[in-house]
Amino acid sequence: MTTTLSPTPRSTVRRGAHRARTDRAELYAVLDAGLVCHLGIVLGGAPVVLPTGYGRLGDTLYLHGSTGAASLRAAARDAPVCVTVTLLDGVVHARSVFHFSMNYRSAVVHGVPRHVTDPDERLAGLRAITENIAPGAWDHARPPNRKELAATSVLALDLTEASVKVRTGPPVDDEEDLARPDGPWAGVLPVEQAFGAPVPCPLLPPDVPVPPHVGPGPG
Amino acid sequence: MTTTLSPTPRSTVRRGAHRARTDRAELYAVLDAGLVCHLGIVLGGAPVVLPTGYGRLGDTLYLHGSTGAASLRAAARDAPVCVTVTLLDGVVHARSVFHFSMNYRSAVVHGVPRHVTDPDERLAGLRAITENIAPGAWDHARPPNRKELAATSVLALDLTEASVKVRTGPPVDDEEDLARPDGPWAGVLPVEQAFGAPVPCPLLPPDVPVPPHVGPGPG
Repeated sequence: MTTTLSPTPRSTVRRGAHRARTDRAELYAVLDAGLVCHLGIVLGGAPVVLPTGYGRLGDTLYLHGSTGAASLRAAARDAPVCVTVTLLDGVVHARSVFHFSMNYRSAVVHGVPRHVTDPDERLAGLRAITENIAPGAWDHARPPNRKELAATSVLALDLTEASVKVRTGPPVDDEEDLARPDGPWAGVLPVEQAFGAPVPCPLLPPDVPVPPHVGPGPG
Repeated sequence: MTTTLSPTPRSTVRRGAHRARTDRAELYAVLDAGLVCHLGIVLGGAPVVLPTGYGRLGDTLYLHGSTGAASLRAAARDAPVCVTVTLLDGVVHARSVFHFSMNYRSAVVHGVPRHVTDPDERLAGLRAITENIAPGAWDHARPPNRKELAATSVLALDLTEASVKVRTGPPVDDEEDLARPDGPWAGVLPVEQAFGAPVPCPLLPPDVPVPPHVGPGPG
């Protein structure tokens, strides 16, 4: 029951090490706040990076895909993957272009995923993936049937080998630039992600209200 | 001067092929709208995916990093990389959990980057990277000096081998689910990214106005 991230050589943050966070709760916070991850695999010796959904249950990250997807098949073959979740918080305008930066929170997870075969864990993993982008949706929509489950691969990635980096705050400028009386503007332009008003499916009867778990809507 | 994306086996969209776009202008649009890319490399046989800034000039994508960064050194060694830019546009609520999806625009670029050594191209690439996150900033802030340039690697990635995928619109549900009179709500919850009000650096004199290229601010 560790609560700190135990770095391996691969998960040790080398660039900007002062931005590394070692509390496991910070890893969870980044993963739970994200909606999309970038899954990296190696295909034919070359990297392939694809966006996909994910969900977390405790110290396990779940991914899913069609049983026909080449990327998922490759990832399920005892091959290493890298899953990265990035939340962009701001553009950092510095006094010199060299010190321009971004405020962000990112989590990088390394590991060899496990192909999930247990029916209960498969359902729990799929539920976590759905709930990560749409909390409350699993109990609202129709559950998967046997045919749909057969068409779906579920992968589990242990969160043991992971790192978190966070940058916050104003630019870090050189002393000489700070001292210039006629220096340029410097600061942070925040980047914010928000949900808009729900757009009902055109095939939905006009009087179906937007349920509370989707958010405030016209219905 | 091609204006269409010529797919190689690697850049041919296999899953959801109807979502593939083949117009080169759509590739440019996704790349120019994004702020962060996910750079995939292979290190010791395993994939590593890291978020980073980038910029586009014509059919070239520029990346930069510290000359000391292991990931950039690896990427500069005639090794293949994958650069993916993803813009999330909405969470698609379907009538069945199986058909939950996301609306998005994504670009995936494969290639072996070129280490840029020409001083003019290095400056142009760095300018493109800065301007991609902060249009107008390059001419406002102090340009890089010799020491800063020596500490910076610039990589150029040709956009020849690239693919674009776009999903828009409502959920695609099964006929049986559409026919249910008491079916669940379905539609799209839009995801929007926006800039907030600029936050001046605490070390800035209080009377420095926010310049127009940063955006509307308190100054």
